[in-house]
Amino acid sequence: MENQDFSFELISQNGRARLGKIFTPRGVIDTPAFMPVGTQGTVKGVFTEDILKTGTQIILGNTYHLLLRPGIEVLNKFDGLHKFMNWDKPILTDSGGYQIMSLSSLNKIDRDLGAIFKSHIDGKKIILSPEKSIQVQKSINSDIIMVLDECPKLTKDKKILSKAIEVSTHWAERCKIEFGQDKSKALFGIVQGGLYQDLREESINSLTKIGFDGYAMGGLAVGETQSDMFKILKETTNLLPKKKPRYLMGVGTPSDILGAVNQGIDMFDCVMPTRSGRTGLAFTWEGKLNIKNSKYQKDKEPLDPNCEIRELNQYSKSYLNHLIKSNEILASMLISLHNINFYQQFMREIRKNIESGTFTTFYKKYIDYFN
Amino acid sequence: MENQDFSFELISQNGRARLGKIFTPRGVIDTPAFMPVGTQGTVKGVFTEDILKTGTQIILGNTYHLLLRPGIEVLNKFDGLHKFMNWDKPILTDSGGYQIMSLSSLNKIDRDLGAIFKSHIDGKKIILSPEKSIQVQKSINSDIIMVLDECPKLTKDKKILSKAIEVSTHWAERCKIEFGQDKSKALFGIVQGGLYQDLREESINSLTKIGFDGYAMGGLAVGETQSDMFKILKETTNLLPKKKPRYLMGVGTPSDILGAVNQGIDMFDCVMPTRSGRTGLAFTWEGKLNIKNSKYQKDKEPLDPNCEIRELNQYSKSYLNHLIKSNEILASMLISLHNINFYQQFMREIRKNIESGTFTTFYKKYIDYFN
Repeated sequence: MENQDFSFELISQNGRARLGKIFTPRGVIDTPAFMPVGTQGTVKGVFTEDILKTGTQIILGNTYHLLLRPGIEVLNKFDGLHKFMNWDKPILTDSGGYQIMSLSSLNKIDRDLGAIFKSHIDGKKIILSPEKSIQVQKSINSDIIMVLDECPKLTKDKKILSKAIEVSTHWAERCKIEFGQDKSKALFGIVQGGLYQDLREESINSLTKIGFDGYAMGGLAVGETQSDMFKILKETTNLLPKKKPRYLMGVGTPSDILGAVNQGIDMFDCVMPTRSGRTGLAFTWEGKLNIKNSKYQKDKEPLDPNCEIRELNQYSKSYLNHLIKSNEILASMLISLHNINFYQQFMREIRKNIESGTFTTFYKKYIDYFN
Repeated sequence: MENQDFSFELISQNGRARLGKIFTPRGVIDTPAFMPVGTQGTVKGVFTEDILKTGTQIILGNTYHLLLRPGIEVLNKFDGLHKFMNWDKPILTDSGGYQIMSLSSLNKIDRDLGAIFKSHIDGKKIILSPEKSIQVQKSINSDIIMVLDECPKLTKDKKILSKAIEVSTHWAERCKIEFGQDKSKALFGIVQGGLYQDLREESINSLTKIGFDGYAMGGLAVGETQSDMFKILKETTNLLPKKKPRYLMGVGTPSDILGAVNQGIDMFDCVMPTRSGRTGLAFTWEGKLNIKNSKYQKDKEPLDPNCEIRELNQYSKSYLNHLIKSNEILASMLISLHNINFYQQFMREIRKNIESGTFTTFYKKYIDYFN
C-alpha cells in the first residue's frame, strides 16, 4: 500500500543540490520538481492527459483566481479541483497573497483582518483572512497548502520588509491553527526578507519555531537580478530544516532553476513554459528559440525529434512558424506542450546528475544557456 | 491493394438521400460526408490525431489563405499540405474564389485575367487566374480540387447571376485544361445560378458538357433562408449526374445538412463546429447548448458521457462553463473537438438510416432540431 501521509525523503546530495521524494496520498513527487501552473483550473492550452505524459507529477493552482471563479460553491460540488479539472495527481495551491498584490485594485493589508481587495472580475470587495485562505485551499482540496503571506514588491527598504515579516509570521501562526491536523496534506511556510540575509534568517527562525511541512522562499523572482537571487539563496537555504522540502516560488527559466537547485532548492513553479508557448518561444537543448523568426520558415526539423507525445515530432518548425504567424490556437497547444515536456526532461536530467554525482558538470554546462 | 484512382460508388438510395463511397489514394470517404474546415492548415484548436479519432475521413483547406501564407514555396518543400500539417487522409481545397470575394479589398473579376485582389495580410496585389488556382491546389497536393468560380453575393438580379455563370463556365473550361490528366485526383465543377431553377439548369448543362469528377452547389449558404436553399436543391439536384458526388459548399447546421441530404447531396463542409466551439456553443443530441449560460454553472454532466476521445466524458458542463467564462484556450479545444465528434456521429446516423431505409423517420425527428 502507498504511503498515505505527506512526507519528504532526502535521498542524496551532490554539493548542496538535493535529490528527494515527496510522498502524498495522490502520488510521489521526485525532487527537484517543476510544477506547471494551472492558474484558473487549467494549465493553459494543454490537456491534463498530455500533462501526465510529460512526466509532470504535481501542478499548481491559484487560490485567488479559483476563489473568484468558479468559486467555493462549485469547487465543493466536485470535492475540490482535482475532479473539476480531471487531474488526479497532487496539486499545490498558493495562498492568494501574491495575486492580490499584483492583480487587484484597492488592495490593503490589515494585520487582523487579512488582505482586503477588489475582485479584478466584478470589483466586489473581498477580505481574505489567513483562516479564509486555508479554508479556500481546503475547498480546492489542495495537497500542499501555502500560508497567507504579505509579499512586498522589490524593495531595499528594511522597514517595509521587516513589517512584512512580522505580519506574515503572525498570519503563518493563524494558518497553522486553521490548518489543524491533517497528515494527508502539507502546510508550507513562506520566508520573506527580500535580499537581506539577516531578515531572511529572522523570518526562517520565526517560521521554524511554528513548524511547517515545508518552506518556501517568497519575495524572490520579483524583479531582482539572477545573481542577487542566487546570492540570497546561497546565504540562506542552509538555514532551512534539512529534512523538509524547499520551494522557490514563481521560478523560473531553466537556468534560474539550475542555479537554485545548486543552492539546495527542491521545488519550482512558473508560467514560463505555457506563457512562452503562446508567444512562440520554445525551450530546447539548443537554447531558447523564437519560432516566429523568419529563419524557421522553411525549417523542416521538429522541435524535438524524439517526442512522441501528441505526435510532437511530426510538426516542423516551419509549420509552427506558420501557425504562430497565423495566430492559430494550435501553435499555443503544440509549443506549450513541448515546453512543459522540455522542462520535465530538464528536471529529470538534473535529478539524474545529482544521483550520479555529476551535477556540477551539468550545472556548468547549462547555467548560462537560457539567458 | 487499395483503389489508387479517384472514383465514386453510389451504394443505395432512400428517397432522394444517397449512400455512397468516394475512393481516393489516401483513403475512402463514406458519404454523406462532413468535412471539418482547416482554413490555414489547421482545424482550429484540434490536434490532427484527434480529428482522426472522430471518424473524420477528409478535411478542407482554403486555397486563398494557404496561397498567402505559408505560400507555395513552403508547401512545395513538404510536397503539399498533408505532410506540412500532419494529416495523411484526403484533403479537398476550395478554389479561393469565395474568400477573395468575402475577405479582400479591391477585388475585381476579369474574365481573362481571373480574380484580382489585395492580400488581407500585406495589401499586395495578386491575380488568381483559373490556371493559377489549379496550380496552387496542386502545390497543396489536394485530393479534390475545385474550379475557380465567381461566387456573387446573395442577389435576385438575374443579370448578375447570368454573368457569373458565364464567367464561371469559361473559367471551369480553363481549369479542366490546366488540371489535365490525373486519375489520383478529382476536379469538381461549381454550379451557380442563385435561387433560380432555370439559371441553375443552364449552369449544370454547361458544366456537365465539360465533364467533372463531381459537382458542387455554389452560391448557397450566403444569407438565403433555409427553406429557399432546400427549395432550389429540390428543383435542381436531380439534374446533376447520378454517378458523381454532389457537394454543398459551406453548409451548415445539422438540420441544414439533413435537409440537403434529403435532396440528394453527398458532401458538406462548414466552420460551424469549430467556430461555435470557440464561443461556447455545443451541438448535442439534446440540441444546441450555450455553455456560457449560468444554468450550466453547477451541471456535473459531461456533454457526451460516451465520448472517450481526449477523455471528453471526464469534463463536466460546469467545468466548460468556467473555462469559457475565463477565456481559457482549453474551452475551445474541448468544445471544438466535441462538436466535430458530434457532427461525425450525426453523419454516421444519417448513413445508417439511409442504409436501413429509415432515413425519412430520422429526417422528421431532427430536421427542426438545431434551429
